[in-house]
Amino acid sequence: MVAALGRLGVVWMKGLYVLKLGGSLVTDKSSAEPKLAPDALLKRLSAEIRDFCADGASLIVVHGAGSYGHPLAKSSGIHEGIRTKDQLVAFAETQKQVNELAVNVAGYLIRAGVPAMPVQASASAVMNSGKLEKMDVDVIRDLLDIGMVPLLYGVPAYDRTNGCSILSGDEIAPYLARALQAKLIVHASDTDGIFTADPRKDKSATLIELVTRDNLGEVRKSLSGSSHVDVSGGAERKVMELFNFGVESCIVNGFTEGNILRALRGERVGTRIVP
Amino acid sequence: MVAALGRLGVVWMKGLYVLKLGGSLVTDKSSAEPKLAPDALLKRLSAEIRDFCADGASLIVVHGAGSYGHPLAKSSGIHEGIRTKDQLVAFAETQKQVNELAVNVAGYLIRAGVPAMPVQASASAVMNSGKLEKMDVDVIRDLLDIGMVPLLYGVPAYDRTNGCSILSGDEIAPYLARALQAKLIVHASDTDGIFTADPRKDKSATLIELVTRDNLGEVRKSLSGSSHVDVSGGAERKVMELFNFGVESCIVNGFTEGNILRALRGERVGTRIVP
Repeated sequence: MVAALGRLGVVWMKGLYVLKLGGSLVTDKSSAEPKLAPDALLKRLSAEIRDFCADGASLIVVHGAGSYGHPLAKSSGIHEGIRTKDQLVAFAETQKQVNELAVNVAGYLIRAGVPAMPVQASASAVMNSGKLEKMDVDVIRDLLDIGMVPLLYGVPAYDRTNGCSILSGDEIAPYLARALQAKLIVHASDTDGIFTADPRKDKSATLIELVTRDNLGEVRKSLSGSSHVDVSGGAERKVMELFNFGVESCIVNGFTEGNILRALRGERVGTRIVP
Repeated sequence: MVAALGRLGVVWMKGLYVLKLGGSLVTDKSSAEPKLAPDALLKRLSAEIRDFCADGASLIVVHGAGSYGHPLAKSSGIHEGIRTKDQLVAFAETQKQVNELAVNVAGYLIRAGVPAMPVQASASAVMNSGKLEKMDVDVIRDLLDIGMVPLLYGVPAYDRTNGCSILSGDEIAPYLARALQAKLIVHASDTDGIFTADPRKDKSATLIELVTRDNLGEVRKSLSGSSHVDVSGGAERKVMELFNFGVESCIVNGFTEGNILRALRGERVGTRIVP
């Protein structure tokens, strides 16, 4: 902690929160070219984040890549490793694209008054066979200490085995949450939470509002017994991953106004998983 | 080194070169707003870098911030430390601006076929009272191993004492050169090299083409004996800094076509300092 900053008040003491914004929230995910999400959506998300920061807690924001990076990574195959010289250029170009997205997202947050500082995970991350092996979290802790809001994002990163693999926002968020002992991870995307079945296909599907040790068995039974094996199998795995991870988490639909702010504030919204 | 990449040929073995591009080369430094250098200049610089990479050596490019970052850093005072909440936002905004510049410079290099991957130094750097204390160089070494061209740039960074200070390209370049045992640092900006006096004021000023242990005393005497005390004092200090640093370096004017490529290739251009 920096002595000269005492007057700013170290917000860190009120606990650390991690907000993961899915690629569908910050970009037009359906676009084959890099395309930002609508202006109104990005402004509204930024306002909710600003309002949460005003509460005085520490916050890390992590966003996905959506239509930035993903299409190029897939078409060039760099997510499966580097084998040609053209893939070296595609690796660089993918990094450039996701940096550009983060510059844009940071711009919205900064204009809303949030000290959102882009932090490029791949400047220190080392992957191994597609898994994050190490990443510098010291600077992120330091930035939180002085009241900044580190803004991380999915990136192509050096991989010890393959030359390159994708370090996704979904991996960065829990890594930081664990390393920095976050109180809560909010996963905001385009789904309302975990349902007993696929709500798009099954009208009897209901939202599971809370998963705790007490109802975990029942929830798993409900998800695995669903007629929509693929979806519910995925949902069961997701619930178990979040449960076993050990940090309280919440899955909310960021397209619904106010959801992110409510989830960060601990209000009842989406699916909350309390290990 | 990645086994799967053996077929790409590891360029690293031919030695490492560091190219520092001054802010005057990549931006319009006279602009009060962030403004990129002219398209033709950036294309020509990129082509020279591409041609050097084709020689098969490893290269790190580091650029200054010029009209990106600098004006905001100065007007907000973040280069002298963080004391207010507004400065937190200015810190974030300055980072955003320099990232935007690096995205643009990377874009030119990538379009020329150079695998130039932006690497944000402040994602791992810790400063102390304005001096670089530590920075992760492992990923940069790893990227070089697979044939990438790491692209670093001046950034506002966390400072243990002041909250924030500026980590300039002029500090990043020698730090990396020493850590990764570079053969040569080329400093390209808007000056032709080191002169015996200020060539804008003194018509008898001549370029000092080579500084070695043999003529160092003579060069210093010439610089310190000049009638232009301020300028020559600065030049003498610069020569001594580069000489004492221990890595061969070359100061060239990047505005003259071909200079950067010639300097990287070891041809006679500008001022070469051989410790």
